[in-house]
Amino acid sequence: MKGQRTRSSILQHAVDLASVEGLEGLTIGRLAEELRMSKSGLFAHFGSKEELQLAAIDAAGQRFIDEVVRPILKFERGYPRLVALCHSWLDYVRRRVFPGGCFFAAASFEFDDRPGPVRDAVARQMDDWFAMLEKAIRMAKDEGHLDPDVDPAQLAFELNALFFGANFAYNLRHDEEAFARARRAIEQRLESIRRYEAPPVVAARRVVHDFID
Amino acid sequence: MKGQRTRSSILQHAVDLASVEGLEGLTIGRLAEELRMSKSGLFAHFGSKEELQLAAIDAAGQRFIDEVVRPILKFERGYPRLVALCHSWLDYVRRRVFPGGCFFAAASFEFDDRPGPVRDAVARQMDDWFAMLEKAIRMAKDEGHLDPDVDPAQLAFELNALFFGANFAYNLRHDEEAFARARRAIEQRLESIRRYEAPPVVAARRVVHDFID
Repeated sequence: MKGQRTRSSILQHAVDLASVEGLEGLTIGRLAEELRMSKSGLFAHFGSKEELQLAAIDAAGQRFIDEVVRPILKFERGYPRLVALCHSWLDYVRRRVFPGGCFFAAASFEFDDRPGPVRDAVARQMDDWFAMLEKAIRMAKDEGHLDPDVDPAQLAFELNALFFGANFAYNLRHDEEAFARARRAIEQRLESIRRYEAPPVVAARRVVHDFID
Repeated sequence: MKGQRTRSSILQHAVDLASVEGLEGLTIGRLAEELRMSKSGLFAHFGSKEELQLAAIDAAGQRFIDEVVRPILKFERGYPRLVALCHSWLDYVRRRVFPGGCFFAAASFEFDDRPGPVRDAVARQMDDWFAMLEKAIRMAKDEGHLDPDVDPAQLAFELNALFFGANFAYNLRHDEEAFARARRAIEQRLESIRRYEAPPVVAARRVVHDFID
């Protein structure tokens, strides 16, 4: 238990460090210095730099789920939950959940051209994130809250681009308007495809559902 | 002259290396290895790692201007030139003008949280880029090709977000649709604010101009 706690507390520091200095800067030596621990003590937890990097990516993914995704499940399925997810993402960068901005945006741009297990782990996390975003869009379609012609992969691409764009403008350019600009663009995009009536198939399914229960 | 040529050829290698391995990975030792030159030979050109990084950022900015901006000046001012600039950006990533994707997107995410001269140089390049993008938008407004209510800073934010989003999806996720998605989103956004009549003030200016000439 104690070993587990120590490992997890070390990992939280590793994630914060990597979010500022990059995953490549996350070495056992650098982390030992930061934590005032011996390098051999850290080696007992992580056998190599790569193992440490992979564990940090997992821990960052867990933090992302806890801070961005979990809080929005309380919102009504469909349009409200999709909008809440967008706001939650922007808020997560402003709240500095990772001190250096979005961990995964930084890791994506750092490792996109360096083949290997670290790159693959980052890409898997991004695949998971896109799957969540597309699911939120599909649910909004299923609820009849969005134009049935909306392509979830296309819309997810656009929304994520605006998220990363806000992260970039806020962190590099210190643009105080970054979040307002992203919110405005997202609102305009979503409003343009918003629908207010349940499509017939969902309405029918509901009737069946109500009847059976 | 020879010294100048050598320096510029070294810098082209430095830019390519940094675009793949990051600006932080651009050390005099690493570059000497790549070029099979002596470290002391490189030190004669660049006194320090930071000097090398700053020179590489300048050289990358020059390549960006030559490859992305200069070719679109032949397009008609206004909407055609704005659209050409967007396509030129996307094409620049697909053509691998920098082997690791957009040099400045990567550098932005790498250095956004590391204060110092390198970060400042990257931010200056991005300021210059946004100034160009906003100017292209303002020119399209001035020509009467865009809704006069369009906010150039807002639209530049959105377009750049889609550019970076395409760079990310193509390089990290190997999404073959990345450029098509970005192009679709840009087209839809620009078409929604397109206008076909010259606003009165431009029309008046043209009459005066024709009269004087």
